[in-house]
Amino acid sequence: MSEKITVEKKVLSENDKLAADIRAQLKARGIVALNFVSSPGSGKTTLLEKTLGALNNELRIGLIAGDVQTENDANRLKAAGGKMVRPIVTGGACHLDAKMITRVLPELDLDQIDLLFIENVGNLVCPSSYDLGEDMKVVLISTTEGDDKPLKYPGMFRRSSVMVINKIDLLGSSDFDMNRVKANARSINADLRIFEVSCRTGQGLKTWFEWIKNLKAAED
Amino acid sequence: MSEKITVEKKVLSENDKLAADIRAQLKARGIVALNFVSSPGSGKTTLLEKTLGALNNELRIGLIAGDVQTENDANRLKAAGGKMVRPIVTGGACHLDAKMITRVLPELDLDQIDLLFIENVGNLVCPSSYDLGEDMKVVLISTTEGDDKPLKYPGMFRRSSVMVINKIDLLGSSDFDMNRVKANARSINADLRIFEVSCRTGQGLKTWFEWIKNLKAAED
Repeated sequence: MSEKITVEKKVLSENDKLAADIRAQLKARGIVALNFVSSPGSGKTTLLEKTLGALNNELRIGLIAGDVQTENDANRLKAAGGKMVRPIVTGGACHLDAKMITRVLPELDLDQIDLLFIENVGNLVCPSSYDLGEDMKVVLISTTEGDDKPLKYPGMFRRSSVMVINKIDLLGSSDFDMNRVKANARSINADLRIFEVSCRTGQGLKTWFEWIKNLKAAED
Repeated sequence: MSEKITVEKKVLSENDKLAADIRAQLKARGIVALNFVSSPGSGKTTLLEKTLGALNNELRIGLIAGDVQTENDANRLKAAGGKMVRPIVTGGACHLDAKMITRVLPELDLDQIDLLFIENVGNLVCPSSYDLGEDMKVVLISTTEGDDKPLKYPGMFRRSSVMVINKIDLLGSSDFDMNRVKANARSINADLRIFEVSCRTGQGLKTWFEWIKNLKAAED
């Protein structure tokens, strides 16, 4: 399969060039971009809904929501108050790539955006290889998924700057151990910033919102 | 990216040839093979542990456990009584393919096996494209993942014969709706056989075990 690997390298190097262009465009306007990645069902859309609800009046948030099929997530984000939301339906592809972002970016008025949130396809493997021009990747993990996931999907946790542990209201309903998941994640990536939240009860979300606000403040 | 698509087609067609060989080998020995697929953390390994615990004395079960990194799952299955367990560490690849199965199959004594369970990499997208020579794919979904997953990842639900809804003990802890998930899944694949289980409390597992036993009986 050396032919496959060669083509894959070429695709990735083309992707990196486009991602660098995106990064330059965003940087020039002082936009902070986060690429949200996780398994299907960890709660990316819900976290973004809550974040919109809390910060929509203070910050101008652009959103790109990727899914294999359906525009469900984009529609949820619009309903949650998202004013600048673009869906990407990958039609089978297991990740977003920089080309897809390049295509939808002109549909967002970048001069009217402070923060850009990109919600990737639910997949703990493939999206880790594709730079989208973001400032950082935010990986979500929910307490119902098992605390060994950082060890089993190390690429994603290595390439993320932030880990959000969601569904902490369900702690105790499985043998998920908070200390163990943190130790596992930090054995892969010692610099990982960690948040513990429940999007359902709201626990921990205030700290998360403050961090998001400070991101923008630090950029200004 | 037409070059990428051409190479991908070639890879898939090579995969299909190897998968046909595997299928023929298994068929010749009357082995029933199931390919277990799901998001990370839906409970594939736990379902297999419980199934081994219940049926290990009646049926000879071979297991192939795939992971991106670590042999954790294979080790758990051995600890649960699995006598013929082979790990596959994909080293970054987001799915198992027929070549990987072809490589480990000689390490299992096929004359001593009634059922072959293959636990795929946790990923709701990519494993759907790769035939491993199985009789059927079994897709797991847990109640904590959201009931819209069949619509958002239709390929996997279309190519599966069976859907196991796991973690039904956590129903009510989210807005997951059992009727909705079934309707969503059947809108993609009307023939899907559905089981509802909790690997934690044991609810529904007896029906699942009976079905597994009948698979083998039907083959004899």
